[in-house]
Order: sequence, then structure tokens, then C-alpha cells
Amino acid sequence: MVNGSQSLIRTLVDAGVEVCFANPGTSDMHFVSALDDVRGIRGVLGLFDGAVTGAADGYARMAERPAATLDLGPGLSKGLANLHNARRACSPIVNIVGDHALSHKRFDAPPETDIDALAGTVSGWVRRSSRPEDVGADAADAVAAAYGPPGQIATLILAANVSWEAGGIAARPHGRPPVTAVPDALVAQAAAALAPGRPAVILLCGLTQRERGLRAASRIAAATGARILTETFPVRLQRGIGLPAFERLGYFAEQAEQQLSGAREMILAGARSPVTFFAYPDRPSCLVPEGCALHRLGEPGQDIVEALEHLADRVAPDTDPILQEIIPTSPHRGVLTVDAVADLVGSNLPEGTIVVDEAVTGAQSMARGTASAPRHDWLTLSGGAFGQGIPTALGAAVACPDRKVINLQADGSALYTAQALWTQARENLNVTTVILSNRSYAILHLEMERVRANTPESRAAALLDLSMPDLDFVHLAQGLGLDAMRATTAEEFSTALQRAASEPGPFLIDAVVK
Amino acid sequence: MVNGSQSLIRTLVDAGVEVCFANPGTSDMHFVSALDDVRGIRGVLGLFDGAVTGAADGYARMAERPAATLDLGPGLSKGLANLHNARRACSPIVNIVGDHALSHKRFDAPPETDIDALAGTVSGWVRRSSRPEDVGADAADAVAAAYGPPGQIATLILAANVSWEAGGIAARPHGRPPVTAVPDALVAQAAAALAPGRPAVILLCGLTQRERGLRAASRIAAATGARILTETFPVRLQRGIGLPAFERLGYFAEQAEQQLSGAREMILAGARSPVTFFAYPDRPSCLVPEGCALHRLGEPGQDIVEALEHLADRVAPDTDPILQEIIPTSPHRGVLTVDAVADLVGSNLPEGTIVVDEAVTGAQSMARGTASAPRHDWLTLSGGAFGQGIPTALGAAVACPDRKVINLQADGSALYTAQALWTQARENLNVTTVILSNRSYAILHLEMERVRANTPESRAAALLDLSMPDLDFVHLAQGLGLDAMRATTAEEFSTALQRAASEPGPFLIDAVVK
Repeated sequence: MVNGSQSLIRTLVDAGVEVCFANPGTSDMHFVSALDDVRGIRGVLGLFDGAVTGAADGYARMAERPAATLDLGPGLSKGLANLHNARRACSPIVNIVGDHALSHKRFDAPPETDIDALAGTVSGWVRRSSRPEDVGADAADAVAAAYGPPGQIATLILAANVSWEAGGIAARPHGRPPVTAVPDALVAQAAAALAPGRPAVILLCGLTQRERGLRAASRIAAATGARILTETFPVRLQRGIGLPAFERLGYFAEQAEQQLSGAREMILAGARSPVTFFAYPDRPSCLVPEGCALHRLGEPGQDIVEALEHLADRVAPDTDPILQEIIPTSPHRGVLTVDAVADLVGSNLPEGTIVVDEAVTGAQSMARGTASAPRHDWLTLSGGAFGQGIPTALGAAVACPDRKVINLQADGSALYTAQALWTQARENLNVTTVILSNRSYAILHLEMERVRANTPESRAAALLDLSMPDLDFVHLAQGLGLDAMRATTAEEFSTALQRAASEPGPFLIDAVVK
Repeated sequence: MVNGSQSLIRTLVDAGVEVCFANPGTSDMHFVSALDDVRGIRGVLGLFDGAVTGAADGYARMAERPAATLDLGPGLSKGLANLHNARRACSPIVNIVGDHALSHKRFDAPPETDIDALAGTVSGWVRRSSRPEDVGADAADAVAAAYGPPGQIATLILAANVSWEAGGIAARPHGRPPVTAVPDALVAQAAAALAPGRPAVILLCGLTQRERGLRAASRIAAATGARILTETFPVRLQRGIGLPAFERLGYFAEQAEQQLSGAREMILAGARSPVTFFAYPDRPSCLVPEGCALHRLGEPGQDIVEALEHLADRVAPDTDPILQEIIPTSPHRGVLTVDAVADLVGSNLPEGTIVVDEAVTGAQSMARGTASAPRHDWLTLSGGAFGQGIPTALGAAVACPDRKVINLQADGSALYTAQALWTQARENLNVTTVILSNRSYAILHLEMERVRANTPESRAAALLDLSMPDLDFVHLAQGLGLDAMRATTAEEFSTALQRAASEPGPFLIDAVVK
């Protein structure tokens, strides 16, 4: 007879969950112990819960199926920021949270935490298994819930006694949810919106940002003049030579307003109605221009990529997509700039690379410098909670062991979840982390300038400065078990990239940029 | 005319809040900017929200008044684990959370987070200021709420527009809450409970764990034979030569049961009725022996120290306290053990040191080795959420710049909030961090053994192992701007302690223990 934990793991394995990212605690010991009894799931240890949850997000984006995460009460709170990002990315995750034995909860022991409230802020589905007999069925429901549509975080809370008590029954998986067709009427509506004389914008999101969707969108643009924009922060965007390339919707309101100005028709291909990230005095939050009509090309669970292809067949039957051509780059020498980093990464990018972009203020340069690199996937920070890059790179590498992962990482954000570097080393993953060391919270300097004329010597500016003392990412990486190099010139950066390419396992480059 | 942020800071300063630990984000920019306009508050930058909140806890424990913490939506979640610990420590903290402008919330922009739900899990008081005119009064209420009694986290949520709009009005502070006397009837009841023939236990908590309370308790014990126990994890315990010393209530249920067995009367001097940390199969959660009567010697807000003295005057009028005497230590040579670390720390401890103990499995040795050191304060992990030590040491050092701080820190727990080392360097604080590197989650190994006979090669055991690759805390510390040394022998550890004592500013010793 198996216990609750064993039936949980058996059910997860049968439902195709192959990886469990874990930072275990006392209430999880029965689950951890059960890993010795049930084969088929790989436990990957993270030293911080935010590393664990960010890894599950990166894994889900690339594997297109959920990993499990293992956490407990106060630990769950440490993982919430990257669960927030995962929620915004619609990444499927089965989040297992160990809790006190049910008889123990009323004593409000020191570790007691309101897990339901915490989990509720990020989960689309939350359940507590109340007895070992239910755990298997609950786990099968959790996996189904994680798939959505859209993908979401399914949190299963498991009291310690439900884990340890006998009576567990493994459950059959529900299978993936079916994908249905977008009603033809919606495609017809969108086609009508693209009629001549009505300036139109198509916002791409989700799966439409891969080859099939991009090609269809490019054909539509070429035939109708519609402007195509991808997400501000794409969850996963295919790009590079031979693929159509589009601008991303701008981050700052004034950029986005300019991109959308004059539009009379807006087709949302999986996208939400566009809004600014933050509000600023006397600026609107909603980015839809006045008088612009909105058209949704399908809903979650519908095949929006196919709908986009149908739309292209209607409005651009004889038009070919426009594909990214080679952009020549100029050579770089001497002092290392953000642009030099971008160009050198771009001209050394292996085909099939997964780029994890948390470059923040360096992101525009990075996108430009890699635009005509060999085909690659581009993963960005989806929810604005910094500290996603290093763990997401870890998770993507676990999902795709045969592909190279490059993490373009701002320095300030790197510090939130640098612990994930250790797991990259432990699992010997092929991840190169490029730290863009400008030694400040540069994005907040920009935001501060938007608030007021800020003098660099002010006390406020000191709260955005990371240079006293300087962070030394080479030592930091070595402390976490990685090889690393610092680069202060373009030549050194080239050498470092070559070294990263020539050695197996993870590597970190501290790119000190001017 | 001042804006909301400026009135907030003005009010905090007038209420005696002198420090703001901050990891700012976009929604906080108006608050940060206001730091240039209002003098009197010191902004201390942390590179991770958990470092900020843990620092505020350490500050509150030593300064006995609240610091402010500055956070925003997803960032708040990163700081929750140490707010959980602070909640369990009854530490007063004014937690300022920046939120979107009110007009922006309904758009559910990517950073949007359920701040109210998150804050609710750790706060005793939560309020949203709805207009700039209210911010000052709300801030004054927040400071009052933080004082309690008992001390608690008061979260004030400030929408960006309420920060930036004009109309702020600074408010007068409410002053500290008064402390009232414990009713004499309770003291008389406790005295009766200490009558001969009824085995009695007195559990100390809070302020009774400082000199006056300890002396009174010792007199009572000497006169009546009552057993005195301090908290399992004291928030702040005074100890060392010349002070009475008592056992702490055991962490594991079987230790605690043994300490309490046979008790027929239990006097709670500020303590809660004792419960185990976690539940285990077939063991009770409640630690009060059957048939044992409970007596509460006062409530929060009452002067329990005075009540304990009155109790001593009744039952032990002519008895002196028993004071800690020198315990000779044997010299240590060669391979470094946990006991050697403890003895060497103890024999080199300057008077007035603040010891922050997150030694976890090493904690018992550390307490033993320092028992007869010069008088010092001992701060421990109050809520079981690991990652409190390094930030708490930072906060304690900010509160007490003239005192030495030693952080006895387990390696696994250190990794959760090591970012706080950088702030120790930035603020040039007199903190020595001793990492007890056993390269495993040793506490979980113990818990695992309690679950099952665990073979070291198992997949479960691998999830508790930190040795592949080894963490190198010397490099890690250097990466964060600190000087550091490794010690693998007792001689090297002595040298490292001397170096830490001789140089100003923070220092880290990676004590690799067998």
C-alpha cells in the first residue's frame, strides 16, 4: 500500500511530469523520501525557492509541459515573485506545497503560514488534499489545470499527514486539453477590418510568435499594410535569419502610443488589449487609440496560429512573407559597450540557441545585435518581477539539453536569484550567462528622470547605485561553482565567448560595460 | 505644498523612524525622490527584498523601535519570508508598499499583484492611503500600530498617484503605547502555583529574557525548585558571564517533552502555550503535559518583567540569583569541528557583542561554547523561514553601530539572503559572519532520518546535499564586496577571528567543519 506522497509522484509521472525543481523543507520530507520509491521523475535541487519557480517557468516555456515545483509554507513566499512572472507567461506549473499535518495547524506553530492566501495570488487553481486516498486524483486534476487553457499555476497543498499516511491511489492522467478551431466568423471579421483605408495593427502573442504565425503575419502585413507588433515582453519569440521580424510593442507609454497612433482597427492575435506597464501623471493607461476598433482572433484554447494562417490566405493569398536578411555589423575594438556585447553575441550565436533576456535597459541593443543571427528562441521577463533570468535559463536548459542557452542579464536583477547558477553547475548545463554590469539600477534611473530632474549626488540617486562596493560577478560565480571571466574590452569579451563555447557546462561573463 | 510621499517621510521622521531599508522599484520612485526633500531618515539599500525585511527585523530587535521598509508589489513577495520571521518575533516594522496609481489597477498590467493578500499574511495592520491628504495621518497610525502591543508589522500601501499628488499633510506622532502593570491577582496565582510539592515550570519569553527578568527567574528557581526555560528560539536573550543562564525549550518534541515531563504547574511569563514546531506521526503537537495547569503572568502591553520581580519578592524574598560562572574550555588544534568554532568564538567574544544565530544544526554547540563569554545579546531565527541571519545581523549593526555583531550562520540558510553581505560592506558595518560549512541541509538530514532510514546514496539524499559543487563562501563574499578567509583548522579559524577583530567593517569566515 502506498502513502499519499508515493501516489502523488506516481500520478505526476504517469501524466508526463518528468522534472521536479525542489528546495525541500521539513514538511516535504515524505515527498522527498518518496522519490526513492517511485522512479521516473528527476529531482533538481535549487538553493532558493525563487530559483526553483523561475526554473519551472523556463522549463514550461521550452518543454511545453509542466514541471513540478516543491516548496513549503514560508518557502512558497520566497518563490512567489517568479510564480508571478510564470503566471503572466501562462506557463503551466504544478506547484506542490507541503504544509503542517492537519491536526497541527490549529496550534499556530512558528512556521505556520497562510499558504492558501499566498498561493491564491499566483495560482489559477488551488486545492488541498484532505486524505491520502484523494492525492492521486487531486494530482491528476492539478496537471490538467496547469495545462489550462491558458497555461497556469496549479497549486496542490499537501499536509504532512496526508503525505505520510497509507492509502494513496495513483490516478490516470486526464490528457492534454483539446485545441479547437477559431470560429470562421472571427477570421472574416478580421479580414474585413484589414480593408484598405483603415490603418490596422495586429498584436501577436503566445504561439503566434513562432514560425508559422510570424510567416502568416508577415504575409498579411505585406499585402495589406497592417502594422504587426509582437508582445512587449514575449514569453517565447522565434527570430533570426530566415524568419519574419517585427517590432515589439514599446515598453514606455510614449513609444507604444507612437507605434499605435492612427490605428483604426486592432486585431488581437492571442494578445490582451494593450496597457502601459505603469501609470504616469497625466498619461493614459490604456494604449488603444480613441476610435480604434478591437477584434479578438480567438480565445485561449483555440488555434490562433491556424486562424492567422486562414486570415493570410484570405487577404494575402499570393503574398510571400518578408524574411530577415543579414545585417552587417561593424567590428568592435577597445572599451566594451552594450552595443559591442550585442553585436558579438549576435555574430557568435549558434543556431537553435535559447536566449533568456533580462537585459533590462540593455534589451533594445541586445535585440538589435542579434536580429540576423541564426534562428533562435527569445524568452523575456513576463511579469516585471526582476530575478527571472538566471533561473529561467536553468529551466530552459533542463528542458532542452541539446541546445545552447545564453542568458543576457542585467546586474541589478541578477542578484535576486543568482543561486540558480549553482544548480546550473550541479546539473552541468550548457548555459552562458552574460552579466551586463553597469553597476546601477539603470532602469530606475530612467524612471527617476521621468519623475524629476535628479542630481547624481542626491540621496535618492544613491539608492539606485550598485557601485559602492562594486559587485564582482566573477567571484560570485566561482563561489557558486561556475567558471567565469571578466571582460572590459571587446577583445576580452570575444575571448570569453569563445571560452564559453569551447567548454561544456555553464560559464559566466562579467561584461563591464560603459 | 508637499506631495503624499513627502508628508509620509516627514511623519515617519517626526515619529522617530530614523532608518528606511529599501529595495526600490518603479512604483516607489516618488518616495525615493522625496528622500531628497525631507531630511532625517537614512536610506539603506538592499539588493534583495528579503535582505531589506530581515534587516528591519534585526534593527527592531536591537533599537526597540521600527524601521521602515520600502517595497512594491512583486518585490513584497520576495520580502515576505523575513516578514514572517519578524511577525513571529513581534518586531515592530513600518512596511511601505508602493502600488500602481489607482486609475491603473483595473487594467491588470503585468506587474499588478494582490498586495493586500500578500501583506495580510504577515501584517497585524494593513491600510491603503486613498488620497495624499490622508497619507500623514495613515503613516502616524502605522507607526502606532507597529508598536502594538505586541510589536507587529504595519503595512501602508501607497498608490503611485497618492505619492505624487500634492496635498500631503504631515501628522503628529501618537507616541508609544503605555505599559500597564500586571494585575496583582495574577502574581498571587503564580505564587500559589509555586507551592511545594507541585513540580512547576516557568517559560520565559520576550523582555523577561534580559537581565532583570533572568535574575528574578533565577531567584524563583533557587527558592522553589521551579524549572526555568527560555524560548526555543529567543528573539533577544541576554546571556554570558554574570547573568543567570537557563536551558532553552528543546526544538525536537522528544527533548521538549522530557524537559516538561512531570510538570503540574506551568507559568507563562510572556510565552505562548508551548507547541512543537512540526507534527510527526503519533506524537502530540501540544507540549503541555496532561493535568498541568497553565498560568499566564500578564498579557502583551503589561509589564511582565516587573510581575516576575514581584513574584520573586513573594516566593524568594531572601534568595540571590545563581549567575553563570566561567566554564573552562579545552584548547583546539588541527581539524576544525563545530565545537572548536563554538569554543573559539566564545573565548574571543567582546563584551556587548550581538550574536545572530542561524547556526541550525550547529546551534547547540554555539550556545554551549559561548555560555560563559562576556555579556552579550543572542538573536535567533524566530519563524523557521531560513535566510534571516545575514540580514538580521545587518539590521542589528545599523541599530547599534558601537557594538560588534557576530553572525553564526549555517551554509544552506546563508544562500537565501547572502545579498545582505553587500549592504554590510556598503555601510561598513562591524559584522563578522561565520559560515558553518557542512555542505548539506543537515537539519533536513535529521528530519529525513525521522521519516525513514535513509541511505546516503539515495535520490532523496541527493536533494539535501550541497557539496556538488562545493559552495565557496570566500569567493561569494568577495563578489559582494567583503574581505573573507577560509578556515579548515582550529589554528586557521583563530587567525581568521583575529583578522576580523583587527579590521573595521564586515568580514566573513568560511569555517569548513567536520
